[in-house]
Amino acid sequence: MNILEYMTDMGRQAREASRVMAAVGTAEKNAALLAIAEAIRSDSDAIGEANARDMAAGREAGLDAALLDRLELTPARIGGMIEGLQQVATLPDPVGEISELKYRPSGIQVGKMRVPLGVVGIIYESRPNVTAEAASLCLKSGNAAILRGGSEAIHSNQAIAECIRKGLQQAGLPETAVQVVATTDREAVGALITLPEYVDVVVPRGGKGLIERISRDATVSVIKHLDGVCHVYLDDEADADKAVAIAVNAKTHRYGTCNTMETLLVARSRAAELLPVIAREMSAAGVELRACSEARAIVNTMTVADDSDWAAEYLAPILAVKVVAGLDEAIAHINRWGSQHTDAIITENYSLARRFLREVDSSSVMVNASTRFADGFEYGLGAEIGISTDKIHARGPVGLEGLTSQKYIVFGDGQIRQ
Amino acid sequence: MNILEYMTDMGRQAREASRVMAAVGTAEKNAALLAIAEAIRSDSDAIGEANARDMAAGREAGLDAALLDRLELTPARIGGMIEGLQQVATLPDPVGEISELKYRPSGIQVGKMRVPLGVVGIIYESRPNVTAEAASLCLKSGNAAILRGGSEAIHSNQAIAECIRKGLQQAGLPETAVQVVATTDREAVGALITLPEYVDVVVPRGGKGLIERISRDATVSVIKHLDGVCHVYLDDEADADKAVAIAVNAKTHRYGTCNTMETLLVARSRAAELLPVIAREMSAAGVELRACSEARAIVNTMTVADDSDWAAEYLAPILAVKVVAGLDEAIAHINRWGSQHTDAIITENYSLARRFLREVDSSSVMVNASTRFADGFEYGLGAEIGISTDKIHARGPVGLEGLTSQKYIVFGDGQIRQ
Repeated sequence: MNILEYMTDMGRQAREASRVMAAVGTAEKNAALLAIAEAIRSDSDAIGEANARDMAAGREAGLDAALLDRLELTPARIGGMIEGLQQVATLPDPVGEISELKYRPSGIQVGKMRVPLGVVGIIYESRPNVTAEAASLCLKSGNAAILRGGSEAIHSNQAIAECIRKGLQQAGLPETAVQVVATTDREAVGALITLPEYVDVVVPRGGKGLIERISRDATVSVIKHLDGVCHVYLDDEADADKAVAIAVNAKTHRYGTCNTMETLLVARSRAAELLPVIAREMSAAGVELRACSEARAIVNTMTVADDSDWAAEYLAPILAVKVVAGLDEAIAHINRWGSQHTDAIITENYSLARRFLREVDSSSVMVNASTRFADGFEYGLGAEIGISTDKIHARGPVGLEGLTSQKYIVFGDGQIRQ
Repeated sequence: MNILEYMTDMGRQAREASRVMAAVGTAEKNAALLAIAEAIRSDSDAIGEANARDMAAGREAGLDAALLDRLELTPARIGGMIEGLQQVATLPDPVGEISELKYRPSGIQVGKMRVPLGVVGIIYESRPNVTAEAASLCLKSGNAAILRGGSEAIHSNQAIAECIRKGLQQAGLPETAVQVVATTDREAVGALITLPEYVDVVVPRGGKGLIERISRDATVSVIKHLDGVCHVYLDDEADADKAVAIAVNAKTHRYGTCNTMETLLVARSRAAELLPVIAREMSAAGVELRACSEARAIVNTMTVADDSDWAAEYLAPILAVKVVAGLDEAIAHINRWGSQHTDAIITENYSLARRFLREVDSSSVMVNASTRFADGFEYGLGAEIGISTDKIHARGPVGLEGLTSQKYIVFGDGQIRQ
C-alpha cells in the first residue's frame, strides 16, 4: 500500500469515527481519557523502553542537545501525560452547548449548538508527550484525530498510541477515533493536508519552516501559529514600578516561548527615566539590548538595531529597544512589525489604554500585564492545543472550544416560509 | 502596470484602510452607509445608463435570459440597494463588543473583544446589486473590502463604486475602504486570492465552478458555500399536516435557492399514508418526483432515482424521494449524501428530535420547520453575505458577526508571570 492509500484509508476511518464521537456522551469520553491515563501508567516501562530506542537513534543521528531534551520521556514527563489526561477529563464538555436561542417573528426559534469540527489532523515535531495531549483534547471535544509526530519519536509515539487504543477500546469507543501515523515517510504529511473529504482542519505545531510549508500546501483548513514578535509599550503615563517589573518579566521569565517580549517600546517622555533601570536589570540577567539611536544616547552600552531587529523573533536573551513619540507611533510600529500575537501597554491612562486595546490588531492585547500570560492555562481554557495567529476561527490560545464550531438549530411548530 | 501589481497595490491600500476602519466609530460608519445610499439615489440615472450598456453588451454576447435577468438593475432593484444600505446602518455594530471578561487566579482579567477580520475580498458574478450589499456589510463590520464583480456587469459596478467612493469621502472615511476592481481580466481573481499579506479572507459568491476553483487555488482563507443538497425527513411520529405543509413549502416555495429541499426522506411506517398526498401536491405544482423502488410501489407515477439523484442539487422542480427504515437510516443518508447545508426532521417525538439535532452534521438543523428558513434575515442576522458550509469559523448564514473574529484582551494591575 502506498502512502496516499494508507493516509486515505486512515482519513476514511477517521471520518467514520468522527460521526460516532460527535454523538458520544460526556461520561464515555471522560471514561476513555481516564482509561488512557491508566494504560500509560501501567505501560510506562514499555513507553520508557520505546523512548530509549528513539533517544539512542537520535544520539547516533547526531541530534543536538535541545532536540534530544525535547525527545526524552522522563518519568516526570510520563507522569505529566497522565495528569494531563486526568485534567482534561475534569474540563467541561463543550459539545452540544446551545446558546442564543431566540424566537423570530415567523415563530421559529433560532439558536446555535456547539459541535465538533469532525476530523482534526495534528502535525508536530520531536516532543512525544504531544501525542497524549493532542489525543486528549481532540477526544474531549468530540473530534476524531489523526496524529503525525516527528520521525525521531516514532517508537515513543507508537507506544503511546497503543495506550490510547487500549483506553478507547476499554471505554467502548472506536479505536480509530485517535490514529497515530505509523510511518516516518514525509509524504504522509503531504497526503494528510490535502484530503479535504476526510480531514476538516490541521493544526501544525513546530518550527516556522514546518508551519509555512503546511500553510502553503494545505487544501484543508489550517489553524496555525507563526511568529511571536511580542511588544511591551511603556506609555507616557506608565507606572514606573509596573513598567520595569513587566518589561523584565516579559523578557526574562523564559526566552524560548512565543509570548516572550522581543521588542520594548518606550515613550520619549519616559525613556531617560526608565531605560537605565531596565537596561541594568536586563544586563544583570544577561540580555543583550539592540536599540535605536535615541535609546543608545541614553544607555550607551546598547548595540545598534536595524530593521531586521524589529521583525526578529529572537527566542533568546536578546531584546530590541525603540523610543517612540507616543501611543500612535507605538501602535503603528506594532501593527507594522509585530506578528499579531501578544502586545501590552503599560499605562495608567484610561483613554490611551482603551485605544491600545481597540487598535492593536493582535490575538492578545494587554494592559498592565506581562505578555507571558498569553497561554491557555493562564486564560482559564484548561488546556491548549496551540496559539493561533490567524484571523478567522480561533485567535490566540486555542483550547477545547477552538476545536469546535457552532451550527444553527431551528425549532418550529410546523412553520413554512411565506 | 500588470494585473499582479494592480492587485497588490489595491491590497496594500486596503490593508492601510483596514487599520483606520477598525478604529472608526459606529456613527461614522453609519453616516457613510447613509451617504452611499444618498449617492446611489442621486446617481440612479447614471447607474441605470451604465447598466443599460452592460445589458446591451450582454445581449450582443448572447447571455441567456436568466443571466440577463440577474444583470438587470431595474428601478426597484436600485431602490433595494438604497434600502439595504439604510437597513445595515440600523444594525448593531458588532465591533468592540467585549464578552466573557473573567478574573483569573493570577489577578488578571481575561475576556474577548470582537474585531474586524481586516481585509475582505468578495468575488461574485452577474448581480451588480451585490456591489452595494457587500460594501455595506464589510463597512459596517469595520473591514476594508476589495470587490470583484462579474465582467458582464463592469459598467454597472463601476457606477456603483463611484457612489461608494462619494459616500466614504463625504463621511470622512478612506475612499480605499471599499475598492471595486476595475478590470475584467480574470487574472485579477487569481491575484486577489493569493495575497495573504494583504487579504485576510475571500468570500466567493456564485456558481459551484467558481467556488471550487477559488477554494483550490486560494492561499488566503475562504468562507465558502458549495452545494445545498437539503433534506426533509418525515419521521415515524411526524404530524401529518406539518409533514405535508413543510415538504411542499421546502420544495415549491422557490426552486433556485440553496435552502430548497432536494431530497425527501420518509419513514417506512408513514410512507403509504404521506407519499400519495405529497405526490399529488407536488404534481399539481409541476414537480417531477424521482424515487426509490419502495416509494414507487406506493406512487407509481414517480420515476426511478439512482445514486446521482441522492447527490443532486437540482435547483429545479425535481425532487428525489426515498423511504428509510427510521431515524438512523435518515441520519446516515443525510451525512452520506447531503452537503452539510440545511436539514429538517418532522416529528412529535422529543428524543428523536434531540438525536437528529445533535447527530446531523449540517450548518442548519431544524425540527418541524421548512428548510427555506435557513437565511440571514429569517435568522435575525439583519443581513447576509452568504451561507457557509465550511466547518471552521462561521457555519450557516454569515452576517456581520461572520465578518469579525474575537481577540483576547487582558486587564492587569502590573501582574507578572511567576
